[in-house]
Amino acid sequence: MTYSSKIISDAVDALSALPSVGKKSAMRLALHLAGDSFSKKEKLIKAMEAMLNDLKICKDCFAYSDSEVCSICTNPVRDRSTVCVVENIRDLIAIEDTGTYQGLYHVLGGVISPLEGVGPENLEIDSLLARIEQLGSKELVMALSPTIDGETTIFYISRLLEAKDITISTIARGVSFGGDLEYADEFTLGRSIQSRLPYSQRQMS
Amino acid sequence: MTYSSKIISDAVDALSALPSVGKKSAMRLALHLAGDSFSKKEKLIKAMEAMLNDLKICKDCFAYSDSEVCSICTNPVRDRSTVCVVENIRDLIAIEDTGTYQGLYHVLGGVISPLEGVGPENLEIDSLLARIEQLGSKELVMALSPTIDGETTIFYISRLLEAKDITISTIARGVSFGGDLEYADEFTLGRSIQSRLPYSQRQMS
Repeated sequence: MTYSSKIISDAVDALSALPSVGKKSAMRLALHLAGDSFSKKEKLIKAMEAMLNDLKICKDCFAYSDSEVCSICTNPVRDRSTVCVVENIRDLIAIEDTGTYQGLYHVLGGVISPLEGVGPENLEIDSLLARIEQLGSKELVMALSPTIDGETTIFYISRLLEAKDITISTIARGVSFGGDLEYADEFTLGRSIQSRLPYSQRQMS
Repeated sequence: MTYSSKIISDAVDALSALPSVGKKSAMRLALHLAGDSFSKKEKLIKAMEAMLNDLKICKDCFAYSDSEVCSICTNPVRDRSTVCVVENIRDLIAIEDTGTYQGLYHVLGGVISPLEGVGPENLEIDSLLARIEQLGSKELVMALSPTIDGETTIFYISRLLEAKDITISTIARGVSFGGDLEYADEFTLGRSIQSRLPYSQRQMS
């Protein structure tokens, strides 16, 4: 693409380096920003500078944080006896958005995947064990993706904790709310039948 | 949405202010940038700062420019006897991308639209006439979107230039009526520039 201005062309380059932003949308964004008042560009600059200079990884749960320990780990209202294990920060945010979980989190940084050469030593598993010990956790909620690698990771961690007095739970696998039963895949539907709940119990929760 | 970090949440806000970027994609972009090495954030910061501080409007053609006069207007290779009239800078870039046009441009800043209260006095029409005079242009290529407002604008400008010895052409109607110029594919747009017709000839047919 040719432009009358190298500044615009640089902006298009910078924006099209973002995931799922093609050249055309990058141009659209750049021209929008060029035509905009100060505010949007300034906000973007400040946000990028903060990410560049001030963003940290929480030393307890390994989520992004503004200080050494993140605002979830330091929140006195959160239930410190429960730790939810997630693969990455996107999943943490997805769970936070549901507003149904009040415990702490632990970001593994991936799942065990022999095919991709990811072993337990590449993940935050040692730190998870140390943290459970230190917090005296009662429950570990394994909120990993329902894949072979996710299941392997759950199995691996549960074996490590066999001797401990801690409940390990996994988030329920089943048909999604509002979904059509006939379109659910056989494996999911089979699992949701196997792990059926008494109706009374379901109403209580 | 809740986040473990206000820095991330600010970045999501800044990114979701962009057109066609929703909260979910903004979060995806923010987390991508957070996890990225320096380069992408630094490039974005530099691009925004340059747009904020150094971006100018070319005093001749009214496109974005890095200096007082843009790189197209100062390019000695460009054919100075032909001026292509476009509605906005997006359309200019779309035409440049086809690589079929070697003349100069003039950005009107819109089209005459009585419904939206845009009259000739709101557009760069006076400056266009002065420029044609100064350049001694031989041809004016009207590359406006094929809409009623675009046609009105072409008609208005052609009337103003009736007494002058200048050919007024419009890009060929390969572009679909009612369509936006910037969405036309490069081949169609390129062909429609090459097969432009004198305005009088078009009226006869």
